This record gives sequence, C-alpha cells and structure tokens, in this order.
Amino acid sequence: MPDPAVSRGAQPRFYATYRLQAGARDIAARARALALEQSIEMPLDAVGDAFVREHIVAHVESIDPSPGAAAGFDVRLALALRTTGREAGQLLNMLFGNCSLQPDVELLDLEPSSELLESMPGPRFGIDGWRRALGLEEGAGPRALTCTALKPQGLGPEALAGLAALFAGAGVDVIKDDHGIADQDYAPFARRVAAVQRAVERAAAQRPVPGRVLYAPTLSGGPARLAEQLRVVRGEGVCAVLVCPMIMGVPTLVELVRAEAGVPIIAHPAFAGNGRIAPALLLGRLFRWFGADATIFPNFGGRFSYDVGICRAIARLAREPQAGIKAALPVPAGGMSVERVDEMLHEYGSDVMLLIGGNLLAGPSSTGESVQARAAAFVRRVHAAAVPRR
Amino acid sequence: MPDPAVSRGAQPRFYATYRLQAGARDIAARARALALEQSIEMPLDAVGDAFVREHIVAHVESIDPSPGAAAGFDVRLALALRTTGREAGQLLNMLFGNCSLQPDVELLDLEPSSELLESMPGPRFGIDGWRRALGLEEGAGPRALTCTALKPQGLGPEALAGLAALFAGAGVDVIKDDHGIADQDYAPFARRVAAVQRAVERAAAQRPVPGRVLYAPTLSGGPARLAEQLRVVRGEGVCAVLVCPMIMGVPTLVELVRAEAGVPIIAHPAFAGNGRIAPALLLGRLFRWFGADATIFPNFGGRFSYDVGICRAIARLAREPQAGIKAALPVPAGGMSVERVDEMLHEYGSDVMLLIGGNLLAGPSSTGESVQARAAAFVRRVHAAAVPRR
Repeated sequence: MPDPAVSRGAQPRFYATYRLQAGARDIAARARALALEQSIEMPLDAVGDAFVREHIVAHVESIDPSPGAAAGFDVRLALALRTTGREAGQLLNMLFGNCSLQPDVELLDLEPSSELLESMPGPRFGIDGWRRALGLEEGAGPRALTCTALKPQGLGPEALAGLAALFAGAGVDVIKDDHGIADQDYAPFARRVAAVQRAVERAAAQRPVPGRVLYAPTLSGGPARLAEQLRVVRGEGVCAVLVCPMIMGVPTLVELVRAEAGVPIIAHPAFAGNGRIAPALLLGRLFRWFGADATIFPNFGGRFSYDVGICRAIARLAREPQAGIKAALPVPAGGMSVERVDEMLHEYGSDVMLLIGGNLLAGPSSTGESVQARAAAFVRRVHAAAVPRR
Repeated sequence: MPDPAVSRGAQPRFYATYRLQAGARDIAARARALALEQSIEMPLDAVGDAFVREHIVAHVESIDPSPGAAAGFDVRLALALRTTGREAGQLLNMLFGNCSLQPDVELLDLEPSSELLESMPGPRFGIDGWRRALGLEEGAGPRALTCTALKPQGLGPEALAGLAALFAGAGVDVIKDDHGIADQDYAPFARRVAAVQRAVERAAAQRPVPGRVLYAPTLSGGPARLAEQLRVVRGEGVCAVLVCPMIMGVPTLVELVRAEAGVPIIAHPAFAGNGRIAPALLLGRLFRWFGADATIFPNFGGRFSYDVGICRAIARLAREPQAGIKAALPVPAGGMSVERVDEMLHEYGSDVMLLIGGNLLAGPSSTGESVQARAAAFVRRVHAAAVPRR
C-alpha cells in the first residue's frame, strides 16, 4: 500500500560542503560513501525502494580540489530536506552525525536555501530586538552594546548581586552570568536570579547613560529544571537568558527555550569547539538558525585560537540578511580588554555586543570602586566611538 | 553575610587528565591557565573571596610528559565537585566547556571517584537488565546478544514493519531503528512505532530461539516531542529505545529519557566524534554514567577509524565494576558482517551485543527471504559460539 504521506513529486534538497582528505584516485568513491553515510547508511545496491533511491539518498553534486594551500577535496552534497524532519537536532544528525566519527571529514558550509530557512526558527528578537529591549532608539547613531559577566562561580547570590549592581551603575547594557554559573548549591538559580535581578533594577536608577540594563542568567539542566528556571525568569521580570546550545542540546534550545523564554537568548560556545565543523557555520549560522539572538565567540588575540578570518566569518554569518530569519548579534569575547574596544569596533562596526569579563575585575588590589571605574571606562569608550553600522 | 548553603569544610574534588601541547618551558603556566579556564575563568589574583580561592579554583595535581611517542604533557587537574551541581550537562561544561575551543587541549580521562559516581545516575537496567528484558536466564551459559537496524530511512511504516518481522522471525534479539530514522513525515514516530511493534510481536511467535525480541525506536526532538514519543512507547508496549546523547543533550537524556522511559536505553555515537575527547571516556564511561544501558561504537576494521585499542577501552569502561553504577553493554558496529561474528566474540566475550545492519540487507538481488536467511545465519553463529563471559 503506498504511503499517503509520501509525495512522489520533486523533493527539496539542501546543500552542504565537506572537506575530505583523500587522494585524487579515491576521492570519487570516498565522496559517494559520505553521501550514503549521511543519508541511508547502507549500500545503494541493496536499496530496492524507488522513492528512497530517488528522493532520500544524498547526491554528490561536485568535487573540487580544496582551494589555496589546503589539502584534500571540497565535496558538495545534496541532502534531502525531508530527512531532517524540519527539526534542528535531526538537521545536525543528517549533516554531521555519523561522519563526526570519521576524522578525514570536515563540515565547511551549509547553504541557506529558502526551503531550509523556512524550517528553522531563527532568533525571535534579533539585533533590533536587543535595541528595543534596551530602550535604545534606532536611527539616531546606533552604538555598539556592552556586556560583562558575573564571576567567579563560587560566590553566593548576594556577592553576585553586589557585583551586578556595580556593573549596572556603570552603565553596562547586558550583565550575564558566567557560563559556569549554573544551578550549584552555593548560588541556586532561584535565589541568585531574584537577588541579581533586584540589584540590577535598583542600580538602574543611577545608570549614567540612556537605556535599560538587562540581566541574562545561565539556563542549564534538563527540561523540567529548565521549565522551572523559565518560571523564575518570568516571575522575576528577567529580560534575557544565556544558554550553551551544545551542552543543552539544540532540540531543547529550539523547542523549549526559544519557544517559551519570551526574552532574547545569548548562545555561549562552551563544548562547541568541534574542530571539524567550521566555527563560523556552527557559531555564526547554525546557532542563529536555532534561535540565538546573540552569539558569543572567542575573538582573535585573546585566550583562544580563532584567527581574524574565522571571527569575521562568524560575524558575517550572524548578521547577513536572510529571508525570514532575523540577524543575531555577534559577541566577541574570551580575554578581551577595555584597551581593545576601539580596535574591536573598527573590526565589527556598531551591530555588535562587546563582552569584557575578567578584565574588568583584574588586578590584585581590585575594589568595588575600581571595578566600577573600569566598567564605566568600558562604557564610555564604547559610547564615544563613532563607528559605522556594518 | 555568609551564605548558609556554603559549607566551609573539606570539599570533594574530581580528577581529570588532559593532554596539552606545550613546550617544557611553558607547560606549568599552560596547565595553571587550563585550571583557571575550567573553574573560575578569570585571573586568580583578582579573586578576593577565600571560599572561591580554596574550594572552587581547580588545582594542577601533576604534570608528566605524555607516555610513549605522544607529544605534549599529561596534566591532571583536581576540579571542585560542587561546580558540577551534580548535573550531567554541567559536568561536561566543567570538564571540557571552554577548553573545547582550545585546540592544544585533549581530554583523556575522568576518574571515577565515589563522590562523582554518587552524582551520576548510571544505567537503570544494565547488562543484567538486558538479559532479563529478553527473558534469557542467567548462569546457563550466557550468550552474546544480537542486534540489527531497520533501514533505510525513507521507507514508510509498513515497509519498516515488514523488515522488522523478518528480523524477529530470524531470532534477532534487539531490532533498532536506524539512527537517521527520527520523526520524518514519511514514517512519523507514532505510526511507525505502532506498526513495527505489532509486527515484531506477531513474528515473535515464530521465533526459532528462546527469549523475547525487543524493538528500540529512535527518540528525537525537544522535550515536548520526546514526552509524546515516550507516551507512544509506553502505550504500544515498546521495550527499549535508542537516543543520540550528543544531539539530544545529556541533561535531557538524564532527566527525561533515563528517568521516564522505563525501558533500557541504547546510546548512539552520532555527533559524538569530537576528536579531542578520548572516545573511550565519552562513549564508554560518560554515556554509561548518563544512563545508557548499551553503547554503540564504531568497531575497528569497519567504516570508521577507531583502532582495536580504542574499542577495547570502550568495552572495558562500559563494563568495569563501579560502585552503584550498573554495567553497560558494549555494542560494536559500523560496517560489521556475519563473517566477523566469531572474531568479535573472541575479542569482546559474551557480555556484548553485536550489531549488524546493512550487511544483512546487502546485495543487489536481496529478497525478503535472503535477508531473513542472512539474519538467521547471524543468530545461529552467535548462539553456536562458546565464549567466556569477560
């Protein structure tokens, strides 16, 4: 009996490019094997079903020597959109599930076809949404946004709230939890979030610059715990959240957090350093497609290793126009300092959120006063810069 | 005000070993930087709080040149157990969150201290649970288990059910969905699972060997979708499930699937090929700790690249005795064939589940009869083998 759900007409495909390490003599066979691995996962000659052969098996679209000095071949596959079930986790599965276990394969690119974009939720708020949430009017010389982190983990709710008050009083736009601050017993989510949110609201009265200040606590744990955390977020009037998509799982990001948080989402790259997925694709494009309104990435010249080209590509993919998908705010971070503000704004323009964490706290003789002074200097430097919107 | 939740007494630590690529002159500083990155993520001299300095900051316990021909140094860190919040996702975050973005770092080992084990759920059923679920009495010469996969994706529910009936009639123990079969419109979860489960139950009457047959459908998607799938599993009397922990997210595996499925869980390694986490640690130890009753891994000599040493280590970590944590069944797979059964049993002993998928379907002239004959040959070969329990 033919399955009524199966249309026999043309079926949309989506296109991904992989770099394969293989010799010229083997590359055609290796590319075909990858196409099978990432679609039907069995020998083609054992497939009798015509629908599967025609519409489900991935095709090798092209094979080209990798450009420049790179070794290997760039192989473009056409995968069947229906295999993704239009679900974010299953998209990752079809893109890089089994071949994540094959070290000769890197995932370079996933093309934003209109059919694929239609199946992705994208940011609910996007860059304009951040400006609205912060009460910053558009048009009148948009400026870059400022962000800092509450740290270190191990402090109790009141200590973190005190730190947040310093930052809020200095005029920082977004104050996020360190991504390591989860739901530990020394700062349980509900008590911490209530204390920090109240401190931020009180300190906002002294805010030296226009606009509001937002606190973004880290969401973590399984679905029931997340749902409880989202209840706290709503109950306390919290206006942003932070998540680690590769730890939480992107299906949960899309279905629970993006759908129900009701506030902008910052994605953190913890556990996302899979060396064989292009960082720009994962942090810039996919996190955006899965609902991140802002995406933190390790900026060049800090504690991490991405070069300037990778960082530019992340910012470009986060912000490029895409039908029906709002732009996400790039957030360069990872050992940045107040001294690098001008350079970063020159690099990224004004549609960016600069995140400086430990540098605001640095120094053996740090006091509350000196921390607030450094945060205020950060804010002044960002506000004073005249940078074009990119 | 001191936080009443914060005990000032001795705090349990857990121990992880990393391989760092650094020169002898730099390794001490690099190791200290890693300890900060994976705990407080800020300069130590900016931390004034005594509790944080004493109980939260990770310590470098030892630094040794990597053994054998390996380059670099093996660095053992002592991390504070409380930073994990005793939650699986946050454990991954503390172990490898930020340093996943640093290509000079590999995670080699995580030691099973009693405190850490107490915070991990482990398998609910374990190896003995699989034998009970299959109705196989213990003691009387335990045999290895047999498993195969329904494939290819793209087939409708009735075609998959027909295939499952062939396998069940041949005496296979566990019939799982291919990991690419999720909740696509050509075989929606509810319809597919109902059809396959009924087919398996009907065919069980002809089972040529003692014991029951179990069907393990793939769970996928976000929490609401998973909860609905679990309702179908319970409603249809399904007796096992398959998950991809690195796509689903381990917090969801632990909190939703492990806690609520009520049946043994098979973990699939899709998207788990992070080249910088030792495969045995991730697939053998951590998936087990997070609740997998069986762990599929790409066996040596198949379509994937793990060597025999890695595969042995996966099986060892899945099965080694651990206080309060049941053993998980190793499931070598990934291009295995009936011809390799004896060799695999010789390698892994009888506490193993052999998974042969595409090989049972292979060949351009495959018919239902020939598929069932190959499956029956697989079953006979496993049952005939006299192998010691390892």
